[in-house]
Amino acid sequence: MPSNLSINRRIVLAARPRGVPAPTDFRLEQGPVPAPQEGQVLLRTEWLSLDPYMRNLMEEVGPGYADPMPLGATMVGGTVSRIVESRHPRFKAGELVVANAGWQDYGISDGSDLMPAGDLEQPSLALGGLGMPGFTAYVGLLDIGEPKPGETVVIGAATGAVGAVAGQIAKLKGARVVGIAGGPDKCRYAVEELGFDACLDHRDPQFAQRLAAACADGIDVYVESIGGAVFDAVHPLLNLNARVPVCGFIAHYNEKTATGPDRLPGWMATLLAKRIRMQGFIILDHYATRFDAFRRDMLAWHAAGKVKLREDIVDGLENAPAAFIGLQQGRNFGKLVVRVAGE
Amino acid sequence: MPSNLSINRRIVLAARPRGVPAPTDFRLEQGPVPAPQEGQVLLRTEWLSLDPYMRNLMEEVGPGYADPMPLGATMVGGTVSRIVESRHPRFKAGELVVANAGWQDYGISDGSDLMPAGDLEQPSLALGGLGMPGFTAYVGLLDIGEPKPGETVVIGAATGAVGAVAGQIAKLKGARVVGIAGGPDKCRYAVEELGFDACLDHRDPQFAQRLAAACADGIDVYVESIGGAVFDAVHPLLNLNARVPVCGFIAHYNEKTATGPDRLPGWMATLLAKRIRMQGFIILDHYATRFDAFRRDMLAWHAAGKVKLREDIVDGLENAPAAFIGLQQGRNFGKLVVRVAGE
Repeated sequence: MPSNLSINRRIVLAARPRGVPAPTDFRLEQGPVPAPQEGQVLLRTEWLSLDPYMRNLMEEVGPGYADPMPLGATMVGGTVSRIVESRHPRFKAGELVVANAGWQDYGISDGSDLMPAGDLEQPSLALGGLGMPGFTAYVGLLDIGEPKPGETVVIGAATGAVGAVAGQIAKLKGARVVGIAGGPDKCRYAVEELGFDACLDHRDPQFAQRLAAACADGIDVYVESIGGAVFDAVHPLLNLNARVPVCGFIAHYNEKTATGPDRLPGWMATLLAKRIRMQGFIILDHYATRFDAFRRDMLAWHAAGKVKLREDIVDGLENAPAAFIGLQQGRNFGKLVVRVAGE
Repeated sequence: MPSNLSINRRIVLAARPRGVPAPTDFRLEQGPVPAPQEGQVLLRTEWLSLDPYMRNLMEEVGPGYADPMPLGATMVGGTVSRIVESRHPRFKAGELVVANAGWQDYGISDGSDLMPAGDLEQPSLALGGLGMPGFTAYVGLLDIGEPKPGETVVIGAATGAVGAVAGQIAKLKGARVVGIAGGPDKCRYAVEELGFDACLDHRDPQFAQRLAAACADGIDVYVESIGGAVFDAVHPLLNLNARVPVCGFIAHYNEKTATGPDRLPGWMATLLAKRIRMQGFIILDHYATRFDAFRRDMLAWHAAGKVKLREDIVDGLENAPAAFIGLQQGRNFGKLVVRVAGE
């Protein structure tokens, strides 16, 4: 179904997923292109970002940092959008902006959530390493993880949008970096392309032992985004005064019930004995104080080839649901973005 | 069995407890009073401190911050001791010191772990509010909890050695303080004597609802030392950017197995959504940098009547095991100390 200049296609939440989302949890609807009011702009989506946090907003009860989506609502999402009509004094038609237009061809904004996309050769990077996920890596690693030269940093999802950046920044700061990823291809990429010192496949039956061997001096910083069995393998290796920035817990987003033995007391005992600092953070809180520094550093590192940014590009808005389902299962390789329009 | 000037009574670890310790896990032994070598002092125990952490050292595998006790070893413990013989140039017979002589009448020290007891009217306070537990409260509350005026601070064991001090310091810093304790007498004491704004009985079937009602503005700092059902009632009430210093997890010290459901994923989701900082700490790490400030502040507050220190005094070394078992069950009311010798 190609895009059409007079029709707005949008993907709505059709049903609340039970566990991993199914294609029937989404529905593609069509309607007229909305008209901007005075003080608003009309946005044409060129790139749509698909990110793990969106899964949380599909629940009836939201995660606390953002409202849950009502049934029938357009799926939320960051976008790189072209302003096609402006009734706002600060924006002109033709400008490319980072927006939150969601999973649709067109969106409306009052301008308050728009940022210039800059003049990137690849504008979708403003949704990845140069945008929210890269910023998450920067704040989580540097402000909460605080790695020192020679320390061991473990990255929970080494080739993901956040993890790949966090690991490369940790290398720039002089840390030893051990990644965790799903499958030999991603692990090879983390070591050979991203420069990680090692990368372990969490599907390997010997994973926990191999991780211990790769972290012979223990773990000083663990950038947590996974949870589950990966967390269980990491936590006995944490050193005294280790730091655990938590930006996600994807292994549990799709759980219906928390079965099994209670892991909380064991984790608390470790937290206490090892004097661990564990801190959750939501990147929205940090834009006012840290985004400028991030953007400056990251543009420089990227331009100098010190940080590589890999994207997993899917063509067509109609393919967003399948791609998003794959993201929940770790099938993407690099930052997942959808090319909705543009060349 | 009275103490005797030529015999050293000591209580040793007879068996490793399964769950709550039993009287048969301890054994009273007698032997000759040890003789100090050159560079050592002989210590007569006057006061013995009984503290929750000792339970952890009775396990075969230690908690990480201190070595486990071998079977047959004298139970470890902080003491206020009198130097009865000195072969050390820096100490004189007759001096009263804070020591680690353990559960026995006499101990030997090379001086490296001794501190002057000061000229306290009640020397046992050097084992409580003016010593390790009070210092734990000070560092946990001020350095990790960082309460701001008007914030709500919840104290997990409101009349315990740590909690009573933490709550009173929080009041001095302008916070609203809600305690949790076992039974109406302790709760009344926390409010009427210690000046807490409220105190809830965790044995009350309506505990969770009452805690929520008492914390209408949510919880900004939770001084964790309990775990279990108390933790479960606290965590839905934690505010954005709440701080959780963890100095213990007593509800779990005596658990044989961690039965389900798994509470870790739910806690992680809260930690993330609320941007919570949770930090374990072991007070031993902080003596070099913070003990002088603590001691100065605490002596002043205590002298001015701003911090009240209640002790639960047990007479006779032979009664230490029963008192310690009671401590695991929350039967003490105030800092638990054993009067071993002296008036």
